Amino acid sequence: MIIALLTDFGTTDSYVGVMKGVIARICPNTQMIDITHEIAPQNIRQGAFTLLNAYRYFPPETIFLVVVDPGVGSTRRPIALRAGEYTFVAPDNGLLSYILTETPVGYGKPQIIELNNPVYQLPAVSYTFHGRDIFAPAAAHLSAGVELDQLGRLIEEPVSLPEPQLAVEDFTLTGEVMNTDHFGNLVTSIGLLEWISTDWLRLNPRFGKRHSMVEVDAAAATVKVYDQVIKGIVPSYSRTRPGDLLAMVGSSGYLEIAVNQGNAAGRLGTQIGDRVEIRIS
Amino acid sequence: MIIALLTDFGTTDSYVGVMKGVIARICPNTQMIDITHEIAPQNIRQGAFTLLNAYRYFPPETIFLVVVDPGVGSTRRPIALRAGEYTFVAPDNGLLSYILTETPVGYGKPQIIELNNPVYQLPAVSYTFHGRDIFAPAAAHLSAGVELDQLGRLIEEPVSLPEPQLAVEDFTLTGEVMNTDHFGNLVTSIGLLEWISTDWLRLNPRFGKRHSMVEVDAAAATVKVYDQVIKGIVPSYSRTRPGDLLAMVGSSGYLEIAVNQGNAAGRLGTQIGDRVEIRIS
Amino acid sequence: MIIALLTDFGTTDSYVGVMKGVIARICPNTQMIDITHEIAPQNIRQGAFTLLNAYRYFPPETIFLVVVDPGVGSTRRPIALRAGEYTFVAPDNGLLSYILTETPVGYGKPQIIELNNPVYQLPAVSYTFHGRDIFAPAAAHLSAGVELDQLGRLIEEPVSLPEPQLAVEDFTLTGEVMNTDHFGNLVTSIGLLEWISTDWLRLNPRFGKRHSMVEVDAAAATVKVYDQVIKGIVPSYSRTRPGDLLAMVGSSGYLEIAVNQGNAAGRLGTQIGDRVEIRIS
Repeated sequence: MIIALLTDFGTTDSYVGVMKGVIARICPNTQMIDITHEIAPQNIRQGAFTLLNAYRYFPPETIFLVVVDPGVGSTRRPIALRAGEYTFVAPDNGLLSYILTETPVGYGKPQIIELNNPVYQLPAVSYTFHGRDIFAPAAAHLSAGVELDQLGRLIEEPVSLPEPQLAVEDFTLTGEVMNTDHFGNLVTSIGLLEWISTDWLRLNPRFGKRHSMVEVDAAAATVKVYDQVIKGIVPSYSRTRPGDLLAMVGSSGYLEIAVNQGNAAGRLGTQIGDRVEIRIS
Repeated sequence: MIIALLTDFGTTDSYVGVMKGVIARICPNTQMIDITHEIAPQNIRQGAFTLLNAYRYFPPETIFLVVVDPGVGSTRRPIALRAGEYTFVAPDNGLLSYILTETPVGYGKPQIIELNNPVYQLPAVSYTFHGRDIFAPAAAHLSAGVELDQLGRLIEEPVSLPEPQLAVEDFTLTGEVMNTDHFGNLVTSIGLLEWISTDWLRLNPRFGKRHSMVEVDAAAATVKVYDQVIKGIVPSYSRTRPGDLLAMVGSSGYLEIAVNQGNAAGRLGTQIGDRVEIRIS
Repeated sequence: MIIALLTDFGTTDSYVGVMKGVIARICPNTQMIDITHEIAPQNIRQGAFTLLNAYRYFPPETIFLVVVDPGVGSTRRPIALRAGEYTFVAPDNGLLSYILTETPVGYGKPQIIELNNPVYQLPAVSYTFHGRDIFAPAAAHLSAGVELDQLGRLIEEPVSLPEPQLAVEDFTLTGEVMNTDHFGNLVTSIGLLEWISTDWLRLNPRFGKRHSMVEVDAAAATVKVYDQVIKGIVPSYSRTRPGDLLAMVGSSGYLEIAVNQGNAAGRLGTQIGDRVEIRIS
């Protein structure tokens, strides 16, 4: 079985390696795959959004070990849950709430467990590193075949994050910058975009399903971020020249702002949370 | 069997990947786990301290491949040693000396081998990359079942690092900053601290066992770093407010200085080696 | 079988993790080894050079998944090829061209396939992330035993990069800086250097084989980078003092400029592409 890891621990310390050592002790030969350990320190929302867009590419039965945990040592609960074909282990601080908005068809309500059975924790639980002492052992025991409901007691209401900003009014969609990636691309909250052809786009914003699908002439749409106005949404970089600022549909179906062979975040000085608009007429 | 890797090679070049290729050639299907490759370039002491606090979480029989090697190409010896249930491969420059201060009960004196048998090295040994040419092959052959004493000749006195600074005088413990982690927390040399309750702490400084254990009223203790004085040692962040500077016991049992949801190293401008004091009355 | 990954994706996003998830879905239990994901964004040449110096250390039958892809979404072809005992999957933009200059003896002409069979791609191919949608699936299907020629149609002329600069005139070799590594060492294009003794060096510049081998008195050679002149080429750091600027033969056989326990790139302010000369008399 696979354990996929997503944290804000960075890779300069031994924190991630130690979690993997703990896992290997409990369940030898588990395959461990890093999603990333470079979530901005304590940025739960960025962690939740990154997980949402990555998990579906993993094999069924993958166990996700997700730790962005500013509340470690407080009363926030450690949890595990099963949603569709996947299992998730995380602090109960909203990290899994975007996942929970996507209940797969044909599965029941996700089962959520508070990880309070000390049998499946390290003998001494620290106040500061539950990744090592609680979450990694839980993931490893699940990988070794322990049933989810053995890890603790069933709970009902996990913590939810506010949904990303996404408003639809007349012919304008307003969203926000959710992430800036390694290439300096701005990933926005305006999602579930699909190309019908290379000229026509279907808009069906994720989060809330608050309006029906709209078909849009991609060349006629206008995208606004700060005081920059971008004319048209292109299917790929190759429709622009190096150095051009452009709007496109990124690989996870969200509107992205990019610079062809350049860095949009650097050029625009954008922050996570900044407002982005699409006018579709 | 597992090979756990700890180096100062970084991950921007192919150095780590090439070592793993060499290992996979010699011993297919070895599981390789990265502890970290971001030890500060040539900082042997940081490497030794990081290893000391990570190794015990790995499964018995793990082989540690540890390379921080400013003396590569000189006469410093490549070594391997067995201590307790673990095996270590490293340059003989002190990297393993903190491990050697912890002789596990019930095991004999560690057996130390100079890696001078060319059969277990790559055919052409470079002057600059013994990680690839000597250390990775040694770890891989050990993983494949070669006996430690086949790798070279028995030696007696490996190089030792000076112990971290740790003085106890009257009611004051003086240590030093050993590391600043990804979150900006300062990890000090004042170790083997244990919470008895959330109000009482047991002090039993690691390194040297130079005094018996002391029990301390955590709220009454004072921690000094630079000109900053911190009143009380807290069990966890949740006892403080975001932005507060605090002293706590970190996940490896050392005194740490942190900022709740902030970066203490950035705020204080601390360097590795800076002095830290605890007054326990 | 092993899939070795080399990209410019960085590790701050989920891109690499998602590719690994896709691979694990198609071919469970493939061993995945990262070479590096820190190629400078869209720097095809740095990627090609890094691959050239890493691949030969991996086991025969390794599949290399190599993605530095500024032309994603354009008409550039995705390809796979077999060269000697190894298989490579990459965009056809020159990334594999340095590999192709090294035809191993005893193998036929490399077989090159355009990856145009949709059966071995993800069902929906995006315009921006062929690493996930085309290249990772191709590598995974190869690892699962699919024959190379099932992945698409045979092609003849892959894109080639210009060779690194390397001129030989009288007693001067002129090359360029190809890379600056994690330690700040400058790796040059003057390659295939071999120590005969610690005082004599054999020069046989890689790329082009435009002249026969020359034997050189290492102490008498002079290396020039910018306005810095370095007297002699040393076999290792131990011949110099901490802080000294030095020229040596790096672990892949190229001339390197380094500072003993320091950072040459930082001190000299060098850029990739800068000119370097060796005078051998």
